[in-house]
Amino acid sequence: MLTIPDYRLRLPGPTAVPERIRQATALPILNHRGAEFKAMLAECQQRLKPIFGTAHNVLIFAGSGTAMMEAALANILSPGEAVLVIVAGQFGERFVSIAKALAAEVDTIPAEWGRALDPRRVEHQLKRRDYRAVVMVHNESSTGVAYNVAEIGALLKNSPTLLVVDSVSGLAGIEMKMDDWGADIVVSASQKSLMCAPGIGLAAISPKAWTVIDRDGRVPSFFADFRRAKASLDKGETPFTPPVTLIYGLLEALRMIDEEGLANVLKRHSRLAAALRAGVQALGLELYNQQNISSSTVVAMKVPQGLEGGAIVQHLRERYRTVIAGARHPSQTGKVIRIGTMGMVSEADIITDLRHLEATLNDLGRPAPSANAGVRAALDALAIRP
Amino acid sequence: MLTIPDYRLRLPGPTAVPERIRQATALPILNHRGAEFKAMLAECQQRLKPIFGTAHNVLIFAGSGTAMMEAALANILSPGEAVLVIVAGQFGERFVSIAKALAAEVDTIPAEWGRALDPRRVEHQLKRRDYRAVVMVHNESSTGVAYNVAEIGALLKNSPTLLVVDSVSGLAGIEMKMDDWGADIVVSASQKSLMCAPGIGLAAISPKAWTVIDRDGRVPSFFADFRRAKASLDKGETPFTPPVTLIYGLLEALRMIDEEGLANVLKRHSRLAAALRAGVQALGLELYNQQNISSSTVVAMKVPQGLEGGAIVQHLRERYRTVIAGARHPSQTGKVIRIGTMGMVSEADIITDLRHLEATLNDLGRPAPSANAGVRAALDALAIRP
Repeated sequence: MLTIPDYRLRLPGPTAVPERIRQATALPILNHRGAEFKAMLAECQQRLKPIFGTAHNVLIFAGSGTAMMEAALANILSPGEAVLVIVAGQFGERFVSIAKALAAEVDTIPAEWGRALDPRRVEHQLKRRDYRAVVMVHNESSTGVAYNVAEIGALLKNSPTLLVVDSVSGLAGIEMKMDDWGADIVVSASQKSLMCAPGIGLAAISPKAWTVIDRDGRVPSFFADFRRAKASLDKGETPFTPPVTLIYGLLEALRMIDEEGLANVLKRHSRLAAALRAGVQALGLELYNQQNISSSTVVAMKVPQGLEGGAIVQHLRERYRTVIAGARHPSQTGKVIRIGTMGMVSEADIITDLRHLEATLNDLGRPAPSANAGVRAALDALAIRP
Repeated sequence: MLTIPDYRLRLPGPTAVPERIRQATALPILNHRGAEFKAMLAECQQRLKPIFGTAHNVLIFAGSGTAMMEAALANILSPGEAVLVIVAGQFGERFVSIAKALAAEVDTIPAEWGRALDPRRVEHQLKRRDYRAVVMVHNESSTGVAYNVAEIGALLKNSPTLLVVDSVSGLAGIEMKMDDWGADIVVSASQKSLMCAPGIGLAAISPKAWTVIDRDGRVPSFFADFRRAKASLDKGETPFTPPVTLIYGLLEALRMIDEEGLANVLKRHSRLAAALRAGVQALGLELYNQQNISSSTVVAMKVPQGLEGGAIVQHLRERYRTVIAGARHPSQTGKVIRIGTMGMVSEADIITDLRHLEATLNDLGRPAPSANAGVRAALDALAIRP
């Protein structure tokens, strides 16, 4: 029987999956076209809608977040059509690559990584060219920034241009009100704040987006065609074999979120991320991003002068069994480390992160300003309950 | 905590997942870019190669079998290029739909469902037009037929035309020797004879196919681009977050296959399918397909005059807790029932299937020719060990 080593998984996704959800995924397979599984899909729908902030159904696919980013664009773009992609990190860049693979005309709004975006830059560009869609990342896990979807949505309110949002690392950890904010396609995945194993992709679609999808005849994909998924969902099914056991896990996760209360879940994410940010700063680390736009699902920090990000990640893993992320983008290599605050995270996790991080910096010759400085700052932050 | 009702899952996929594999999928998430997970991917590679009958690596995706059918075509076809699809059932038709979504020119060789295909028809058509690929289904689970891949491969030996094979419901239950047979892209999925939960797609690719993929610049998908998957696999990874826990299950399944021995696994499938065919015929049911081309992973049978397939399926499920499949294709509705003999199937399963089927036919007013006729015929078939 397969065994795996025991780590504290503290990545910005995939996140640690609670025991209760893991056990759900080990249940026997049901007929995916039978009444019991249909009831589960229906229950997932009811519980997903408030998390997306939508009154409409949420399509469920076997796939990763990237597959869903691609599905979102494939369903609304014909070759040669123009999209405007806001690029403020690695996942914005990924959207550009996807749009190019789909033969779209791609313009970008390059934003400085980790910094706020002035929506007037988008507004200005919208006046210069007609776009099928503005494409943005809600939560850039590569830089630790949550972007304001509502202010971009407001720009498109009376325009035929759609707003496509990647909320893979945001959804269920950071508020999403897609209907109110004017987001037209929001995609996400199971392995971030939804606390599940990876392998499920999600897409919520506005009536405005459906008008475009239904009007344009051809989607250059059979598998990812939202019309086919919607037609099946209207009968309570998925068009193709879904990841049955992962959907058991998703349902269990959604029940847990509703037991805690979605508002409480979001507040917990915000509170714990703030505490971790206070802690790492007290250890002498600088945030990677502008403080006031910090994400609640990931804390990204700069690697201190003279140290290498990979060495910190490796030491934390080997000496303290805590797995955090370094940089993935070549431009950031060695310069940023990132800790997830998404999913089933507790105060104890944050305190342990800071103890291990302090010890690691100490082991690598960069002792904290004072013993337990990080933990003390985090406890101070946690004591204030907004 | 989620619970599910207790059924005997006897579908032609998804199949029942053995306890040992289910428990593997409940293990905690590992960093999918860490050394331990890379070792698992490498072990999967080593164990998958003999099952595909290839010396080359097997790409692993988050997705379903249909996603992989589409990926296979998307990687080799440019819009307007011609493919020749052999259509002998529902999954052949699906390939046609996928090729059309990709804007290919599609010619078909329509074969009578459930009947043998004369390869000379393919040979003849190949002389009339240049095709980028011949596309076929190894095992048509909609009709219960396993087709001969080698004889189609032989036709393409000295031609630039590629052979694309869907072995979703064949692989690991029916022999696949892709290198010897001249198959260029073979796709499969986790939830059939591989005994796993659904959610993993697999693709094995010949050097001849790589020449085409590498030569053609543009693949109209970022997520499904085989070049990107291969480049990552060469570093021991997947390009995007893989379905980590399902891959634990796949590894456990592959270890189980190697413990039993691949040859023994294939022989078990063949023996049990033959026993089930003998049994259902002794109950007075006619096979849907021509006997000599019967699949070893699914038994498809005609519904007797005066009965309706859906009623048999429903009675088996409600009265005997045995879940089998009816027809999925509209042309077959009510006329065919299908039982899986794929994955972790035992003699006890076949005997129980036949007992429940006999009882169901009896309950519906179609008693067997003699009591236990099906089970006796199956036992006779099982007594002969080739």
